[in-house]
Amino acid sequence: MQKRKIAVVITARPSYSRVKTVLTAIQKHPNLELQLIIAASALLDRYGSAVNYIEKDGFAIAAKVFNVLEGENLTAAAKTTGIGILELSTVFDNLKPDIVVTVADRFETMATAIAASYMNIPLAHIQGGEVTGNIDEKVRHAITKLADYHFVASESAKERVIKLGEESKMVFNTGCPSIDLASEIINNKTLSFDPYEKYGGVGAKPDLNNGYVVVMQHPVTTEYKDSRKHIEVTLEAIYKLNKPTLWFWPNVDAGADGTSTGIRAFREQHQLPNVHFFKNMEGKDFLQLLKHSDCLIGNSSVGIRECAFLGVPVVNIGSRQNRRERGGNSVDVDYSEKEIGNAIKTMIQKGQSISSPIYGDGKAGVKIAKLLAEVPLQFHKTINY
Amino acid sequence: MQKRKIAVVITARPSYSRVKTVLTAIQKHPNLELQLIIAASALLDRYGSAVNYIEKDGFAIAAKVFNVLEGENLTAAAKTTGIGILELSTVFDNLKPDIVVTVADRFETMATAIAASYMNIPLAHIQGGEVTGNIDEKVRHAITKLADYHFVASESAKERVIKLGEESKMVFNTGCPSIDLASEIINNKTLSFDPYEKYGGVGAKPDLNNGYVVVMQHPVTTEYKDSRKHIEVTLEAIYKLNKPTLWFWPNVDAGADGTSTGIRAFREQHQLPNVHFFKNMEGKDFLQLLKHSDCLIGNSSVGIRECAFLGVPVVNIGSRQNRRERGGNSVDVDYSEKEIGNAIKTMIQKGQSISSPIYGDGKAGVKIAKLLAEVPLQFHKTINY
Amino acid sequence: MQKRKIAVVITARPSYSRVKTVLTAIQKHPNLELQLIIAASALLDRYGSAVNYIEKDGFAIAAKVFNVLEGENLTAAAKTTGIGILELSTVFDNLKPDIVVTVADRFETMATAIAASYMNIPLAHIQGGEVTGNIDEKVRHAITKLADYHFVASESAKERVIKLGEESKMVFNTGCPSIDLASEIINNKTLSFDPYEKYGGVGAKPDLNNGYVVVMQHPVTTEYKDSRKHIEVTLEAIYKLNKPTLWFWPNVDAGADGTSTGIRAFREQHQLPNVHFFKNMEGKDFLQLLKHSDCLIGNSSVGIRECAFLGVPVVNIGSRQNRRERGGNSVDVDYSEKEIGNAIKTMIQKGQSISSPIYGDGKAGVKIAKLLAEVPLQFHKTINY
Amino acid sequence: MQKRKIAVVITARPSYSRVKTVLTAIQKHPNLELQLIIAASALLDRYGSAVNYIEKDGFAIAAKVFNVLEGENLTAAAKTTGIGILELSTVFDNLKPDIVVTVADRFETMATAIAASYMNIPLAHIQGGEVTGNIDEKVRHAITKLADYHFVASESAKERVIKLGEESKMVFNTGCPSIDLASEIINNKTLSFDPYEKYGGVGAKPDLNNGYVVVMQHPVTTEYKDSRKHIEVTLEAIYKLNKPTLWFWPNVDAGADGTSTGIRAFREQHQLPNVHFFKNMEGKDFLQLLKHSDCLIGNSSVGIRECAFLGVPVVNIGSRQNRRERGGNSVDVDYSEKEIGNAIKTMIQKGQSISSPIYGDGKAGVKIAKLLAEVPLQFHKTINY
Repeated sequence: MQKRKIAVVITARPSYSRVKTVLTAIQKHPNLELQLIIAASALLDRYGSAVNYIEKDGFAIAAKVFNVLEGENLTAAAKTTGIGILELSTVFDNLKPDIVVTVADRFETMATAIAASYMNIPLAHIQGGEVTGNIDEKVRHAITKLADYHFVASESAKERVIKLGEESKMVFNTGCPSIDLASEIINNKTLSFDPYEKYGGVGAKPDLNNGYVVVMQHPVTTEYKDSRKHIEVTLEAIYKLNKPTLWFWPNVDAGADGTSTGIRAFREQHQLPNVHFFKNMEGKDFLQLLKHSDCLIGNSSVGIRECAFLGVPVVNIGSRQNRRERGGNSVDVDYSEKEIGNAIKTMIQKGQSISSPIYGDGKAGVKIAKLLAEVPLQFHKTINY
Repeated sequence: MQKRKIAVVITARPSYSRVKTVLTAIQKHPNLELQLIIAASALLDRYGSAVNYIEKDGFAIAAKVFNVLEGENLTAAAKTTGIGILELSTVFDNLKPDIVVTVADRFETMATAIAASYMNIPLAHIQGGEVTGNIDEKVRHAITKLADYHFVASESAKERVIKLGEESKMVFNTGCPSIDLASEIINNKTLSFDPYEKYGGVGAKPDLNNGYVVVMQHPVTTEYKDSRKHIEVTLEAIYKLNKPTLWFWPNVDAGADGTSTGIRAFREQHQLPNVHFFKNMEGKDFLQLLKHSDCLIGNSSVGIRECAFLGVPVVNIGSRQNRRERGGNSVDVDYSEKEIGNAIKTMIQKGQSISSPIYGDGKAGVKIAKLLAEVPLQFHKTINY
Repeated sequence: MQKRKIAVVITARPSYSRVKTVLTAIQKHPNLELQLIIAASALLDRYGSAVNYIEKDGFAIAAKVFNVLEGENLTAAAKTTGIGILELSTVFDNLKPDIVVTVADRFETMATAIAASYMNIPLAHIQGGEVTGNIDEKVRHAITKLADYHFVASESAKERVIKLGEESKMVFNTGCPSIDLASEIINNKTLSFDPYEKYGGVGAKPDLNNGYVVVMQHPVTTEYKDSRKHIEVTLEAIYKLNKPTLWFWPNVDAGADGTSTGIRAFREQHQLPNVHFFKNMEGKDFLQLLKHSDCLIGNSSVGIRECAFLGVPVVNIGSRQNRRERGGNSVDVDYSEKEIGNAIKTMIQKGQSISSPIYGDGKAGVKIAKLLAEVPLQFHKTINY
Repeated sequence: MQKRKIAVVITARPSYSRVKTVLTAIQKHPNLELQLIIAASALLDRYGSAVNYIEKDGFAIAAKVFNVLEGENLTAAAKTTGIGILELSTVFDNLKPDIVVTVADRFETMATAIAASYMNIPLAHIQGGEVTGNIDEKVRHAITKLADYHFVASESAKERVIKLGEESKMVFNTGCPSIDLASEIINNKTLSFDPYEKYGGVGAKPDLNNGYVVVMQHPVTTEYKDSRKHIEVTLEAIYKLNKPTLWFWPNVDAGADGTSTGIRAFREQHQLPNVHFFKNMEGKDFLQLLKHSDCLIGNSSVGIRECAFLGVPVVNIGSRQNRRERGGNSVDVDYSEKEIGNAIKTMIQKGQSISSPIYGDGKAGVKIAKLLAEVPLQFHKTINY
C-alpha cells in the first residue's frame, strides 16, 4: 500500500515544540510519510532558528520557505501571509501531499490553510476551538472553517468546533501534543542540564539552586502599539522582585520590536544582577526549567497548558490567553507592576498544584498520527445547519 | 465631521453587478466617502472588463490591483489570493479606510478579508451565511469568522451567521443588493435595447420576439476537471432544443478554460443557427433580458436570487447553488442532457412565477450604506459561546 | 567526483525548442546533473503547454513554477518577473545548483538571472549579445551584465558581449543550439508526419502537396497597443494571397491578446478556406514544416536563425528582429499589406537559398554541456575597463 | 503646460542622504512634479527610519512600499527585489509617472529599474558607471542597460557608461548629489549640534573636543558569511586604539545580522569607555561630524566621495569600494587589525587633504532636475555598436 504523504508546515519555534511528538509519531507510523515544511520565523536567527533544532532532532526537511516580511507591524503580518500562500502553493504543487497539517493560530498559519484548501488538499488543524479574544481568534476559527479534520486539545474546544458547524465525526479531542513532552519530564527530579552553558544568552547568571522564576511575555497583536509599555511594566516588577530570573525573548509578531526595544532600553538603564536572557531553548529543556521553577510570569500559552499539567504556578498577564480554559495553577493579572509583583509572591508561596488533565493525557502525538492514517481523504464539506 | 472612508473591493464582473446599488448609496451618503478598489478579473478583458462599466457608470477608482495568476487551476487560485493580500495591504496602508467591505465568496475575496482583518481595519461582509457546499462555502464561512459586520441576504443566512458564533447585533438582514436592480426593472414591459447591437458578441442572431432562453454556466471549483464534460452536456441539450438562445461566457475560475474550450470546440464542430454568445452585459440590461426570457439555464446565483424576485423560470444544473434557498421559480437537475432538455421544456410551459421576497425588498443598497455610517468602528471580537 | 548540478529554467515553448539539444547533452554528460525547472508560459495550456512535450521527451522536471500574472499588458510583464524571482529563489534555495542557465531575452528570464546572481550562484546565459532594438534588448544586455558565462550564437554577438565589458575568456561562440535541431532535419526529403492529424488545430485543411506558407507573428512589446492593427495587416495579406497557409498562434507577451483577438475577429468575419491554425508543434516537426514550405511570414527569430541555416525564404515583418544578423534568405518589410503581399510572391519565386553558417554548425548543445562541466565556478566579476 | 511627473524611489537611508538635493531641486522646478516613493529599509526602524527624516524635511510621500523580506541572507535579497517589482508596478500603474528615477546600486533598486523599464516608463539612473567589484557592480551595470538617462558622478563613470553601449547624448556628468550637501558645510567651523543629545544612541559618551574618529562598516554582500569576522577585526582595532569613537550601525544587507551580532557580542564582552553607537543621523549632521573628525574608518562610499571633497582622512577597509576613484584623502587596508590600527594612526597624523573635485562641484541636484525637465521622453533604445 502507498503511504499517505502528510505535509506538516511549521512556522515558528513554539509551534515546533508543540507538535514535535506528532512529527515523531508520523515518522514512525508504517503507513505515513512525513513531508516537513519549515517556513516563516522558524527559519530566522532572530527568532531562535527552530530549523536548527529540527535538523538536530533528525527530521528531514522537504522544503524551506522564507516568507517573513520585515516591518513587525500589521501590514507586514498580512504580507507575510500573502507571500506564504504564493510559495506554499508551489511547494504543495511539487510535493503533492495527501493531507496538509496546520498548527494552532499564528497569523501566518492562514497561508497553509488557504493554500491547502484552495488546492483541494484535505486539511487537518491542530488546536482549533479555543478562545483567546484577539486576532488569533479570528485566525483560529477561520481556519476551522477551512479545515476538514480537527484535532482539538480539550472537551470544550471540541464542543465549540462542532457548534461552528463542523461534523462531529471530524472533530477529535486528542489532547494537546505539547502535553506529551510535559508527560515525559513530569517525574524528572532535578534539572538535567546547565542552562547557561547549554544555551548561552546574555546578562547575569544568578544561582538557580534556591529557586528562580521564568518570564516569557509576547506582544499582543491587537495592542501592538502598547507592547513597549506592557513589557516595561513587567520589567519593573521583576526588577523590584530581584529574584533569580530567566527571561525569554519574544516571538516574531507585530509588536515584537516594541517588546525587544523595551527590554534593550531597560537593560541599558538598569543593573539587573539577577536576570539572565535566553533567545530560545529546546522544548523539553524548557519544560524542565519550568517544572523546577517557582513561577512562570508572562502571557505564554505554556502557562495555561503545559504548566497546568505540570502543576507549575503561573502569573498570566493581560488579555493574550483570554478565555482559554485554566487548570487551577494560574492567576490572571492586568498590566500593573503592583498586581504582577503581588501575584508572583502569592503564587510562589502557594507552590505547585496537582496535575490537571484538561489538555490531555500525554498521548496526543500518537493519536493524531493514527487518525491521519485512517481518516477518509476528503475536502468537500458543508456546514451542518 | 470627518466622513467615514469606506473601501469596497470589487474583484469580478458579477460582484460589481451585485453591489452597484451599495456603491451608489455610499457615494450619496453625506457621512461616507467611497474608496473603490478594482482588482482581479474585474480588470481583465477576457472576463468582461467590469472596470470599463464601472468607469462608465461614473465611479472614481481609488486603486487598481492586477493579481490574477494565470493557470486557471487550483494552484493559480491560491496564488491569486496570495498576491491579492500582498497588494491590498499596501493599498489599505496608503488609503487608510475606516471600514473595508468585501462581497460574497469568490476565492480571491479572502485576500480582502485577510488584509483588512490582519491590519485591524473593521471588515464588513456582504452575503455571508449562505450554503452552497463547495470551496465557496469554506471561503464564505471563513470570511464570516474574519468579518466584524455581516450584511446578509435572507433570514436563514442571518440565523446561520449567528450560529457561527457572531454577535446577533452585528448581523443585519439587509436583503441582497442584487434585488435592488431587479426591483427597478420588474415592471418593465419590453426589452429596452437591442442586445446584438449594444453588446456585439459572436454567433447567430436569432429573432428574440417569439421567446428565447438564456444560458449561464460556470465551472464548479471542486469539480474543475469535469468542467469541459459538464459544459458539453449543456451544449448538447441546447443544440437539440434548437430555440433562440443567448449564451454568456463563464467567470474566471479554476476550470474556466475547460468551459471555454468546450464551447469553442463545440462551435467548430456544430452549426448553432439559434445561438448567440455574449462576453458580458451591464447588470440592468442582463436582468431585463432575463425578465423577458422563457427560461434561464445553468448554475448562476442569478437564477436563485434575482430570478426568484422576478419570477423567471430557471433550470439550475448541478451542485453549484447547492443548499441556497429557492424561491419556487426553479428546478434542480443533474449534468444530464436528457434531464436538462426535459426540465427546460417543463419550465417554459410552466411560465413565470409570482415574485418571491426571500432575498429582499429592493432597498439593500441604502440599508447597507446607512449601517456603514452608523455601526461602531471595532475589529476586536470574540466568539459568543 | 560529485556531478555539477546544472539548473536550466525554461519559461516558454520556443525557448524549449531552442535549447532542447543542450538539455540532452547535459543529461548525457557524465559529470553533469540536470535540474530542469519549468515556469511561466511553458506550463500554460493557452501557450502550447511546452511542459507536456518536455515530459513526453523524457526529461524529469525538478520543479514547476506558475508565475504568469494575467493582464497581457506591461504591468503584468513586470509582475510576472517579480513573482518569478520570489519563487525561483525558493527553488534554488532547495535545489542548490552549481550553475544556473538562462535562455535568451524574454522578459521573465530576468527573474532567473536576478535570483541566481543575487544568490551568488554562477549564471550562464545562452544567446546574449544580439541586437533587436526593443525591450528584449534591454533585458538581454542587462542579463549579460548579471551573467558569468556567455554562450553566444555568432561572432558578432561575441564581440558585442566583450565590448559590454565581459572578460573574453568567459564568452564562448558555441553557435545557436536551435541550429542543432535544424541540422538533424536539413537532409529530410519529405514531411514525415501529417500536421493536421498529429496536431489538430482549427480552420480549413488545405492540401499541402503543392506548396504552402507558414505564418508566425508575435506582438512586439514596445508597440503592444498596435498588436491588433499589425496582425490585421498580415491577415489581410494572407487572405488576399489565398494560398495554403499554416498559421501559429502567438507567444504570451504584452499584446498577445490584441493579436489573438485580431485573429479571432478576422475569422468570424471572413472565410479562410486556405488557412489552418495551430496552437503549437514540437520543434523538430516545426522545422520540417518550414523546410518544406515556400516561405515563412512573420517576425519570429526562427526566420532569422533556423531558416538561414535551412535556406528557407522568409518575409520578416516589422521591428522585432531589428539588427539581428541576416543570412541572405530573408527580406524585411514594414506593417503594410501591400509590401507583405509583394514580398511573399518575390520570395516564393526566388526559392530556397544555400545554408548559412552564421548561427552555428549544429553542435551547440554538446559544446555548451562541455563548457558547463569545465568552466571555473565563480560569480564574482568586475567590468574589464 | 502639464508638469512632468518624476517618480523617485528611495529604498535606504544613505540613498536619501545622497539625493536629497535632487528631491529639493525637483520640487522647486516649475515644470516638474515630484512623486516620492519610499520603500524597503527606508521604512524600517531597525535601519534608521529614513522615512521619518523625509517627512520632517517636508517632502510629501506619494506611496510607501514595505518589501524587505527577512532573512538577511542572499535569498532574502532576491525576494525583496521580487516583491519590490510586484508592488512598484502597481504604484507606477496608479501614479503614471513620466520618468522614474532610481539611485545607485543597492540590490533592491533593480526592482525600480525593472518595473519602470518593463512598463515603458523612461528610466533615469543616478550614479551608474562606477566600479566596485561585487554584486553591487552587477546590479549597477545591469541597471545602466535598463536605463534611458544616466546621471553619473565623474568623468571616468561617464566614459564607462558610454563604453557599455549607451548613447553619449544620454550620459550626463552631473557630479554626485551627495557633494551638494558637503559643499554646504565645507566652510563650517565647529560642530553645530551635540550628537549625543540630538541622536541618542547607546554606549559611552566620550568627550569630542580633543579629536575623535568615526566608524561605518557595512557587510559586503559577496562575503556575507564573513561579516562577523570582518567586524570583529575592526572592533579589536578600535578597542586597542582607545580614542573617542562614534560608531554607526550597518545597512540592511545580506550579512547585516553578522555585523550587528558581532558588535553586540563584543559589547557584552568588553568595556568600551570611548565608543558611542548611533543608529543613524541626518545627512548634513553626519557630514559635519565627519568634517570635524580626525578620520573615518570602514567601507562606506562616503569615505570615497564626500570625504574626498571635504578632505577628511579615511581608512577604507576591504573590497567594498574596490575600483571607485579615490581623491587622495584615503588609504586602503585589508581586514587586519594591525593594518587598520596603523593606518588610522598614519592618517590622523597626516591630517586633512585639499578638497578634490572628482565627484562634482556641489550643483548636481539642480543640474539633474533641469535635465529631467528637458530630456526627450523615450524608452526605446538600442545598443550603439
